[in-house]
Amino acid sequence: MPPTVLDIFRARRRLRPWLQPTPVRESGWLSSRCDHRALLKLESLNLTSSFKIRGAFNALLHLVEAHRVPTARPMVVTASAGNHGRAMARAAAQLGLRVVVFTPANAPLAKRAAIRRDGAELHDEAPDYDAAERLAHAFAREAGGVFISPYNHPDVIAGAGTVGLEIVEACPDVATVVVPLGGGGLASGVGLAIRAAAPAARVVGVEAEASTPFTASLARGAITTIEPKETLADGLAGNLEAGTITFPLVQQVVDEVVTVSEDDLRAAMRALAAEEHLMVEGSAAVAVAALASGSLAAAVGPAVAIVSGANIDLATLVAAVGAPVAH
Amino acid sequence: MPPTVLDIFRARRRLRPWLQPTPVRESGWLSSRCDHRALLKLESLNLTSSFKIRGAFNALLHLVEAHRVPTARPMVVTASAGNHGRAMARAAAQLGLRVVVFTPANAPLAKRAAIRRDGAELHDEAPDYDAAERLAHAFAREAGGVFISPYNHPDVIAGAGTVGLEIVEACPDVATVVVPLGGGGLASGVGLAIRAAAPAARVVGVEAEASTPFTASLARGAITTIEPKETLADGLAGNLEAGTITFPLVQQVVDEVVTVSEDDLRAAMRALAAEEHLMVEGSAAVAVAALASGSLAAAVGPAVAIVSGANIDLATLVAAVGAPVAH
Repeated sequence: MPPTVLDIFRARRRLRPWLQPTPVRESGWLSSRCDHRALLKLESLNLTSSFKIRGAFNALLHLVEAHRVPTARPMVVTASAGNHGRAMARAAAQLGLRVVVFTPANAPLAKRAAIRRDGAELHDEAPDYDAAERLAHAFAREAGGVFISPYNHPDVIAGAGTVGLEIVEACPDVATVVVPLGGGGLASGVGLAIRAAAPAARVVGVEAEASTPFTASLARGAITTIEPKETLADGLAGNLEAGTITFPLVQQVVDEVVTVSEDDLRAAMRALAAEEHLMVEGSAAVAVAALASGSLAAAVGPAVAIVSGANIDLATLVAAVGAPVAH
Repeated sequence: MPPTVLDIFRARRRLRPWLQPTPVRESGWLSSRCDHRALLKLESLNLTSSFKIRGAFNALLHLVEAHRVPTARPMVVTASAGNHGRAMARAAAQLGLRVVVFTPANAPLAKRAAIRRDGAELHDEAPDYDAAERLAHAFAREAGGVFISPYNHPDVIAGAGTVGLEIVEACPDVATVVVPLGGGGLASGVGLAIRAAAPAARVVGVEAEASTPFTASLARGAITTIEPKETLADGLAGNLEAGTITFPLVQQVVDEVVTVSEDDLRAAMRALAAEEHLMVEGSAAVAVAALASGSLAAAVGPAVAIVSGANIDLATLVAAVGAPVAH
């Protein structure tokens, strides 16, 4: 069952004791590039450095509610390229749940170290994400655990949707909300929230030019397989899982999907570091890149760009933006 | 007149419509280094990328209250090495006040550009900060403006003190609050707030080893001139103005002052980038450096380290932490 806006309000009530709202900060630099007010919703500053902590906590708190007796609570199993696994490990540690995380072998060391530090059981032998997901499903079946997908799960989407409620509270006259678009979990949740709380606002999803499954699927009206190329927005790249509940949700709650080039993305990452002093991962810069490069059909202010995560290392950032020049 | 905790509550009421609270985020990395819970108060994420926006808004809102008729409002004049000037320009722009900012000629270009972008009148011919301050005082006298100091001003200190109230709200059992110590404005305000709202908590100020006017002055019981050396914590370096109200306040509300070496500072900046994905300026890393290096006499958790600002450019950060190594 896809989530509704009521599930987002429930998620917000669940998350309140565990997570502070993240900042919505006006950007002088981006406003001057857009000719209207532009603000940044800084999910990159959330616990575990990405919005994923919202869905992870929401799913695990829901599970705790459903199993009041601690000893009756099932083991949780998940698969992740890194951010969702890190978030699940953290939420599970705080709630006293046992969690088993499957990642690909090439997931960043820093993320795997953080997963272990929070006491999760980590399996990082899979050659890629798809293999990690298959192993996780098999493990959950055999060992009697509950599998929680990083995106195709109503509690995860509803948790992500709380970002949308916070945007409207911080900026009640918001006219445009710009959201990074990968598997569609964040865009689905935020779109549902905006439709309800600020129905006049436009919701724009942003894909990297290198990987556009939503652009292709929305054009055809059905999930369509594409050939993802390399992109700085690695967290967004890939195809949509067959039958994912995020596809009909995006059809319903996202007004426009645009794409940004690698050059636009690189420029946005550079400007976020130089002008806003923010380290952000490539996936998290696509919404800012879309506003700064004028990619939107109708750019009406105030516009809020979601900056979704900061899980990048300094070397990768420097390599992406080029050798920095001191003033 | 030095401010009291009532002025901090007044400041909070004034600031509420203008500034969101900043995050207080638990750090898994720092907690593992300290053997107790350690959290970061992220003032680096505030509007204009430093805590200075609180004092700037508080001083200007107070001025607006005192002069209800817009045309009767005086011009505001200030001097700054950068962050305070940027904050004043921003607050003045939002309140429709005229502000004139004096900075040294070598203030970072990015900060001067931001000051101009917000429509402030900028004078950046002074050879150093002291000269900028003298020019600002003279200009205010001749042109009939009100001079607002970046630290030796009750409204600026009270604004900074609101950081302390937010720490107690986010972490009511806080046992240690660790504060960067330069001119003492932030430490004075935060110390006043903590004494009132969490009287059992210890307040620790942190100076860079290269510039320790408070360590020297507290030992002698009187403001003492030191010879500041070069430090990554450039925003903290320098002597205390004769008669500054921050000296008796720090005597009264700060329990302990410790120092950190340049190596500790560099290590803290590197870890904040690698583990927390935060770009912070040197001055902002001293509290984290003190906790991570075990400099405190009694380190009791939960401990909150204030990360005071992010106004550093990527080139300076990379130069400070050394060539980053990709995982």
